[in-house]
Amino acid sequence: MTERKQTLNVAMIGHGFIGRVHSNAFHQVGHFFDIPYKLHLKVVCGRDRTKLDAMASQWGWEGTETDWRAVISRPDIQIVDIAAPNVLHAPIALAAAQAGKIVLCEKPLAMSLEEAEAMAKAVDGLPNLVWFNYRRVPAIAFARALINEGRTGQTFHYRSTYLHQSGTDPARASGWRFKRSEAGSGAMGDLLSHSVDLGFHLNGAITELMAMTHTFVPEREVDDAVMFLARFTNGSIGTFEASRFAVGCRNRNTFEIHGSRGMLRFNMENMNQLEFYDATEAPNLQGTRNLMITGPDHPYSSNFWKPGHIIGYEHTFIATLGDFFGALARHEGFHPDFEDAVLVQRALSAVERSAVSRSWVSLK
Amino acid sequence: MTERKQTLNVAMIGHGFIGRVHSNAFHQVGHFFDIPYKLHLKVVCGRDRTKLDAMASQWGWEGTETDWRAVISRPDIQIVDIAAPNVLHAPIALAAAQAGKIVLCEKPLAMSLEEAEAMAKAVDGLPNLVWFNYRRVPAIAFARALINEGRTGQTFHYRSTYLHQSGTDPARASGWRFKRSEAGSGAMGDLLSHSVDLGFHLNGAITELMAMTHTFVPEREVDDAVMFLARFTNGSIGTFEASRFAVGCRNRNTFEIHGSRGMLRFNMENMNQLEFYDATEAPNLQGTRNLMITGPDHPYSSNFWKPGHIIGYEHTFIATLGDFFGALARHEGFHPDFEDAVLVQRALSAVERSAVSRSWVSLK
Amino acid sequence: MTERKQTLNVAMIGHGFIGRVHSNAFHQVGHFFDIPYKLHLKVVCGRDRTKLDAMASQWGWEGTETDWRAVISRPDIQIVDIAAPNVLHAPIALAAAQAGKIVLCEKPLAMSLEEAEAMAKAVDGLPNLVWFNYRRVPAIAFARALINEGRTGQTFHYRSTYLHQSGTDPARASGWRFKRSEAGSGAMGDLLSHSVDLGFHLNGAITELMAMTHTFVPEREVDDAVMFLARFTNGSIGTFEASRFAVGCRNRNTFEIHGSRGMLRFNMENMNQLEFYDATEAPNLQGTRNLMITGPDHPYSSNFWKPGHIIGYEHTFIATLGDFFGALARHEGFHPDFEDAVLVQRALSAVERSAVSRSWVSLK
Amino acid sequence: MTERKQTLNVAMIGHGFIGRVHSNAFHQVGHFFDIPYKLHLKVVCGRDRTKLDAMASQWGWEGTETDWRAVISRPDIQIVDIAAPNVLHAPIALAAAQAGKIVLCEKPLAMSLEEAEAMAKAVDGLPNLVWFNYRRVPAIAFARALINEGRTGQTFHYRSTYLHQSGTDPARASGWRFKRSEAGSGAMGDLLSHSVDLGFHLNGAITELMAMTHTFVPEREVDDAVMFLARFTNGSIGTFEASRFAVGCRNRNTFEIHGSRGMLRFNMENMNQLEFYDATEAPNLQGTRNLMITGPDHPYSSNFWKPGHIIGYEHTFIATLGDFFGALARHEGFHPDFEDAVLVQRALSAVERSAVSRSWVSLK
Repeated sequence: MTERKQTLNVAMIGHGFIGRVHSNAFHQVGHFFDIPYKLHLKVVCGRDRTKLDAMASQWGWEGTETDWRAVISRPDIQIVDIAAPNVLHAPIALAAAQAGKIVLCEKPLAMSLEEAEAMAKAVDGLPNLVWFNYRRVPAIAFARALINEGRTGQTFHYRSTYLHQSGTDPARASGWRFKRSEAGSGAMGDLLSHSVDLGFHLNGAITELMAMTHTFVPEREVDDAVMFLARFTNGSIGTFEASRFAVGCRNRNTFEIHGSRGMLRFNMENMNQLEFYDATEAPNLQGTRNLMITGPDHPYSSNFWKPGHIIGYEHTFIATLGDFFGALARHEGFHPDFEDAVLVQRALSAVERSAVSRSWVSLK
Repeated sequence: MTERKQTLNVAMIGHGFIGRVHSNAFHQVGHFFDIPYKLHLKVVCGRDRTKLDAMASQWGWEGTETDWRAVISRPDIQIVDIAAPNVLHAPIALAAAQAGKIVLCEKPLAMSLEEAEAMAKAVDGLPNLVWFNYRRVPAIAFARALINEGRTGQTFHYRSTYLHQSGTDPARASGWRFKRSEAGSGAMGDLLSHSVDLGFHLNGAITELMAMTHTFVPEREVDDAVMFLARFTNGSIGTFEASRFAVGCRNRNTFEIHGSRGMLRFNMENMNQLEFYDATEAPNLQGTRNLMITGPDHPYSSNFWKPGHIIGYEHTFIATLGDFFGALARHEGFHPDFEDAVLVQRALSAVERSAVSRSWVSLK
Repeated sequence: MTERKQTLNVAMIGHGFIGRVHSNAFHQVGHFFDIPYKLHLKVVCGRDRTKLDAMASQWGWEGTETDWRAVISRPDIQIVDIAAPNVLHAPIALAAAQAGKIVLCEKPLAMSLEEAEAMAKAVDGLPNLVWFNYRRVPAIAFARALINEGRTGQTFHYRSTYLHQSGTDPARASGWRFKRSEAGSGAMGDLLSHSVDLGFHLNGAITELMAMTHTFVPEREVDDAVMFLARFTNGSIGTFEASRFAVGCRNRNTFEIHGSRGMLRFNMENMNQLEFYDATEAPNLQGTRNLMITGPDHPYSSNFWKPGHIIGYEHTFIATLGDFFGALARHEGFHPDFEDAVLVQRALSAVERSAVSRSWVSLK
Repeated sequence: MTERKQTLNVAMIGHGFIGRVHSNAFHQVGHFFDIPYKLHLKVVCGRDRTKLDAMASQWGWEGTETDWRAVISRPDIQIVDIAAPNVLHAPIALAAAQAGKIVLCEKPLAMSLEEAEAMAKAVDGLPNLVWFNYRRVPAIAFARALINEGRTGQTFHYRSTYLHQSGTDPARASGWRFKRSEAGSGAMGDLLSHSVDLGFHLNGAITELMAMTHTFVPEREVDDAVMFLARFTNGSIGTFEASRFAVGCRNRNTFEIHGSRGMLRFNMENMNQLEFYDATEAPNLQGTRNLMITGPDHPYSSNFWKPGHIIGYEHTFIATLGDFFGALARHEGFHPDFEDAVLVQRALSAVERSAVSRSWVSLK
């Protein structure tokens, strides 16, 4: 059966932590998803030749390149995957779109709303994806299904936190993620972008928001923490908080939803679990149910292992690719795409303006 | 309305930790339960005059006494409550029964099965109670209700642990609870007796068992730990374990039940919660539900506070008294009584014989 | 020893749920705390004669009264305890102060900041207390001790939620708590006042805040939910959220603190536990520790039961009285008093103004 | 750098669930571990031609074969991996050893102790491995490290459960795992073998045990559940329980250890976490610590993702291979090998004999 598959050559720009995660996903997607493509890890591109070679060797990239423009001009490349610092997302994406490639891009999509809009315009008509990988956490996909089935009813409250402690560690706080010129923002683009995308995905659009940001280290260029209050168009209200100073938390990406018919609660640190409270049960049997989202009848459970056998962080990237290539084969659109990321960028822009102006900002 | 209540004078033998717990229950039962009796804390009896006076003063006992025989002979006493070391249970209970008193006794009822049987015979016809207080934990009462309604189906497994670390602390290990002549046994009578009573209460009789005991401190007279495998008459199988050497556990009294239709899990350290897994739900909605057993529609929730407002250890004693005096007023039997405690004592006797003989012992 | 105790006669205005809780505390404080007073439950006052009589009988109040002014004028009363609807707090407290009584008052202290200030002025020089009972949850008292010892270091984040679902239940939403004229506000006075007091108690003063309120039921007079962002004077930032529409939550009163040296997490639904993350441990041994705050060496553990034996909601009221009367005997001030409650009321006032003006409000 | 790696051709016998898990590990080991070998997935062998082809295609096996003997006779194969039903383990392993292959075998190693001993003898001198994959759960490896460092002190109690509900589902209960002729036993070989291996790994040898087995479905050939009490040579006592009738549990593989200095607790359903209670802390700071074993300084954390980013079931197989090939390159022995599996088989044999004879069986 392999011979009937179309080969797609992938070029990846970036070779850090997230580059390894993407490499893994390119290798693994065909093992877990039945897609009519064979992905070939053609070339990985980066600036540090030594690290690049080691990475290419470990992760099975056929070749390496230090100039991303050279990569994009290669006619043998069908897919350009952007895993480089934020400042490079726009130039690479625009060039890749110009060259007619399939474009995959890490979040946050851009350094500004204007950049994001230009990028979305550029990839219009080309298959594209933004790595808001958490949508493919099985528990989150199942939460969305429950919401869409009406199992939580009318939403009253949406509560989101994304808590890291990475900012307090001087050793980890010196990279590009802490430089405004390369990252654009701090916790906002890095963490809050994920939270906002999930908020939209699970609870719809935000009407207006009121934000604040804070930088605990005086000389630091970017925000260490960002928080906002929100009104959603569905009538619910919400809080969002993202921080790199949340000591005690490694990757505590959470949401809670209270609706007229039930509650949902999720924490990425226990990503195979979803808490569900069914308020339509008999009162004395109402309780927070710990659902293990590993099957049966859970999203992606037929792709991975047996019920009770958990998956990890990397599988959210694999599932993202699985769905992306499935959609590609069926000539369907895929989400989250650049347009979805523009919505997130618009919200982040509103967050920034609100924090500066110390006032509510409308998103309508 | 108070004037219509009948006054019952209580004499309590013993004034240690558990004596304080009983005192509290005598004071509080009328606040939380509508019973037609007014309990008067008439006399408390103990050997240490100084401690006894302090205790009487703090807990509102009208008088004190150092000779328990003198207490029992008093005609103004209607209720004798035995909160003394195990070795005294039988002589006091027999005397109190002889004097026609209502007899309440701490667990384990006796030092031996023979003693227990004699005591049960003696109190025959008299209202009596054994302080297996855990039956009145609201979560346990609710677990029993779910089992009786068939919500867990046919039981497959019963798993019980009662884990303390008190035995490893030399400061706490010198009291009467560690002397064979006063306590009869160690973890067995102190902890396992509770577990066995709950096992019978929730899962019925045991057919046969295979036990072992262990004493970690060579010079110690009583068992530090006891474990047994069991076959229940309902066809299920079980494990029981009680220990005073379970470092990390203060009062971890747990049970788990797996049945054809569901699972129940309880831990006394979170006594207001009961975990319930409903295996009749749709497969993708099956999960362990954390029920907060504080109402509505939970046992004793109308007696204590509002839903979400938890109760503590002492309330199990109050509820025991509430039910006891309710039954007394209605001229009904009450459980757990001395007969129930004889069943527990029979099981403990089998445990001891099994541990010594290293063989299965039948309980039929 | 009892004879040496001074008798203090208590009058309580109000006989609902919280009146039962106070009654219990008056009865129990002497059992658990060594105080040189004997509290006598002299008279309970309320408007519904039938319910009042039943309450007095059940909880051992010597007499009843339907006119609170008559109660206050009685010379045989030393303590006036206000457990009536919010609108009555000020008139009763002012009259009681005028009469020179010891005044205890439920939260929120007043209907407005002005009222609160007048009340605080009136009780100046008289022993007084506001029932912010959660300060005496042993786990919260221990959290404060850890903070004060520097175990959490410089605070970065303070996160508070107080989540109820009571507002969604029409049967429970018709009482005085939902009427502006009697309650003043909704979730704000009822729930958020507790959260703000704890915030001050644990993390110090707030510099400025930005709030929003929301009422989900159009015809309802008071706020169903209230949220705010805050800057504390210690340099940390925080979020507060209180709601009666948090389906799935009965009494989820929580806080989380992230500091440079550690994290603390508390949830009233598991009030005997405190989560502590010590960031000064070796990296591979850092984890969220579940401390069972039942002793040894925990606040109030010598007052109640043995380690591992949990207490409940009511004990926070008992401990409040225990500390209050201890301070009274030592001629010391007690907190939280009316002045502390004025600070809370000032914050609530700022919350209201911020929500209306949709802008940041300074608390300096 | 890739060119310097030695290619090893792998043949895998079996293509079911566990075959997919092994295939994944062969592909992935080189991505996460720095080993001087390139594994080539040469041939997969199975009886069902259609399923075999699909599996080979999906998982990238170069060829297929339906006769395992033909596979073993191929000179181009260096590694034979046995993922076939238990009854085939011995014949395949013996043939593969005879052919001088590196032999990897699923657990339980054999149908009987005699078979296991013959197999261990046959592979003597050849690199070999038994897939007791749970040893490589990072949390379990870290538990072992803590034990070996003395952080738990002298062990008092070891408690193990391995709970499944698969046996209650008729749809899942018809395969070879439920036939005595193909599986040898039920829960015993399938689940308990893992538990016993972990028990030995973490707590050392067992001196004697007392077991019982039970089959809930009368016509079923194998045990649905097995339990035993044990004495370890280190002076501790333990309980083991494995069941396929534990409704509510998908893969609840747990252990708890109480020692003089601390407690450890693990549950495979939350495999990235290890609970640790340090009894040497100040009493008021002692609590069960939830360690997230994803780094820093945790086993395998440098191989997989960043701290806070969890891994899943499959990674335990990858880490097993990583260590195996690392040891191979260093010409060191590897554990668990066939000899380790013989020890497990000896214990299972004792369990069977004890259950039949209803008596204690010595393992010395």
